[in-house]
Amino acid sequence: MENFEFYNPTRLVFGKGMIAKLGELIPADRRVMITFGGGSVKRNGIYDQVKAAMTGHDFIEFWGIEPNPAVETLRKAIDLGKAEKIDFLLAVGGGSVIDGTKLIAAGMLYDGDAWDLVLKRDYSDGIPFGTVLTLPATGSEMNNGAVISRQESQEKYDFYTNYPVFSILDPEATFSLPPKQVSCGLTDTFIHVLEQYLTTCGQSRIMDRWAEGILQTIIEITPKIKKDQCDYDLMADFMMAATMGLNGFVAMGVTQDWVTHMIGHELTALHGITHGATLAIVCPGTMKVLREQKGDKILQYGERVWGITEGSRDERIDAAIDRTEQFFRSLGLNTRLGEEQIGEETIAEIERRFNARHATYGEAHNVNGAVARRILEACR
Amino acid sequence: MENFEFYNPTRLVFGKGMIAKLGELIPADRRVMITFGGGSVKRNGIYDQVKAAMTGHDFIEFWGIEPNPAVETLRKAIDLGKAEKIDFLLAVGGGSVIDGTKLIAAGMLYDGDAWDLVLKRDYSDGIPFGTVLTLPATGSEMNNGAVISRQESQEKYDFYTNYPVFSILDPEATFSLPPKQVSCGLTDTFIHVLEQYLTTCGQSRIMDRWAEGILQTIIEITPKIKKDQCDYDLMADFMMAATMGLNGFVAMGVTQDWVTHMIGHELTALHGITHGATLAIVCPGTMKVLREQKGDKILQYGERVWGITEGSRDERIDAAIDRTEQFFRSLGLNTRLGEEQIGEETIAEIERRFNARHATYGEAHNVNGAVARRILEACR
Repeated sequence: MENFEFYNPTRLVFGKGMIAKLGELIPADRRVMITFGGGSVKRNGIYDQVKAAMTGHDFIEFWGIEPNPAVETLRKAIDLGKAEKIDFLLAVGGGSVIDGTKLIAAGMLYDGDAWDLVLKRDYSDGIPFGTVLTLPATGSEMNNGAVISRQESQEKYDFYTNYPVFSILDPEATFSLPPKQVSCGLTDTFIHVLEQYLTTCGQSRIMDRWAEGILQTIIEITPKIKKDQCDYDLMADFMMAATMGLNGFVAMGVTQDWVTHMIGHELTALHGITHGATLAIVCPGTMKVLREQKGDKILQYGERVWGITEGSRDERIDAAIDRTEQFFRSLGLNTRLGEEQIGEETIAEIERRFNARHATYGEAHNVNGAVARRILEACR
Repeated sequence: MENFEFYNPTRLVFGKGMIAKLGELIPADRRVMITFGGGSVKRNGIYDQVKAAMTGHDFIEFWGIEPNPAVETLRKAIDLGKAEKIDFLLAVGGGSVIDGTKLIAAGMLYDGDAWDLVLKRDYSDGIPFGTVLTLPATGSEMNNGAVISRQESQEKYDFYTNYPVFSILDPEATFSLPPKQVSCGLTDTFIHVLEQYLTTCGQSRIMDRWAEGILQTIIEITPKIKKDQCDYDLMADFMMAATMGLNGFVAMGVTQDWVTHMIGHELTALHGITHGATLAIVCPGTMKVLREQKGDKILQYGERVWGITEGSRDERIDAAIDRTEQFFRSLGLNTRLGEEQIGEETIAEIERRFNARHATYGEAHNVNGAVARRILEACR
């Protein structure tokens, strides 16, 4: 096991009716800005619940944080927050609203341009913020990361700052989500766990079991959720999976990968494809191209998660990759670049971007532009 | 899933050589009292590592917190701490030293007698404290609970206060532990997880998988540790298991039991038997007497943790209970009261104590004095 430090101070407030606790969770003397995405929270009743719970608090609203939150939008929120002397933020939405709010929180105590903070990558100053989660997927409600886009240059980078002080997770908030978003959220969660799990074998028995436990859970609940998205316990398991999949709880003392994400982010930056949908395309390609390096762990994954015990080593690895791709297809997602009309031009641009950054990604730091190209070609 | 709040702000600092980080973890302007048990840390080098890491800090030492820490001892530490104007505590030891330090931390800001705080059960005022763990078992290094004894009246109760600010876990600190303590620590960890898992089925898929993952890990590492207690990765898995088994991570949204612990505490209070050793005796009895109520979960446990899939429902339940008892025996522990020369007199006293408290224990709140007697009789 590798040496590690673990720290996660976010208070998780989970269950039916918990939005009503907002009044206790935010100190009464704070001036709050509530941040939102589009208007879906007005249609599903979340907005009314939040407003009712905030009675007696002094707050303003900022609307319009888009999917793949853009620094162009967030700058406006920071300007408004500074002008209004805001000292607490409340994000109400999915991963994009929460990610965007993390940059707003940091930007509130920074004099320069917010994109500087993204380029710094780590910036832990900022005003406190809480969240009300409406879309389980990114885990942003219980971690200190965010992914921020810059539309002007079609760039998208990750950024690390403070943890939410609290996050309220009410599974009922997910009942009215569009099924495509649920599919992308399940996929995103599944691949977050794979990024922390499909690495070198034998680093930590408990982390392996816990990662496998989340993967098994997602596989078990997915067909049931497709039949009934309003089953409380199923959606509670989904919400738990998404949060536990990226809050550090399965990452203690083990190496990580994140190659699928690094390539997926480029597909979003270049084509605007939903994050989870990009991962469903790239993940099987990553497994195919890195099958030798990741072979032992793919075998363990195949056996423990999918019950694959028959066949030669190569056959079992093939079967594990195939079951993974078929799982994403069962969610109604595309798993090939061609299905999104993406071809050589994009592959060349991503190869160029990987090379231009002089960075090599992945657990073994061996994924450069050429390897990224091979992965993308395996996704055609 | 039940509604829940989860909060755990302890910073975990895990790995080889991490004791050297003490200097950064404790603010330089604090006046520190370091608390210890007996002298084993002087023999295994931990004391020297701690002293070296504390160079430049202002600190005093308090020695002699005993196994099953007694309020009689802790009062002396509180008096010393107040006289010396201590504003940070560092516990160096196992669960007893850490539990005792939690009461000292609370007592430092309380004017009355420390036993009052134990009787209050919840008291969250107190000075901050960190820990250096030397014996994985109780999970106290990453939770807010403590169990405090009062020798005068042979009483032992649980008490809840603040979380450690940080805990340093270096698996190398466990290499020189007496094998009996390792056996008791593995058993304690195993049963902590059972107390949170052997309840009603179907509450949370992830909590079930995570609890099973810790149990599977302990079963897998136990025979290997018996062969080589100086294998770093094995002892790292053991340390992780003990901490993750009682830090709330497997308790989110699920009911809990704790009957085995409530009876075990009485055996320690009356006979001074090591905590883990009492649990090995009581646990199979609890499973036998509550086999109808816990039957579905015992079947799931038998199948997923022990691979028991053959036989009738009753046979599989019998097999799961038997495998559990045999596991404790494989650790060299007694599993019957008779082996500890405990008989009717103690059973009658524990029945009397349970009844006198007018409390009913367990997930179903149905374990009164009469049921405790049946459990103890099943352990004869």
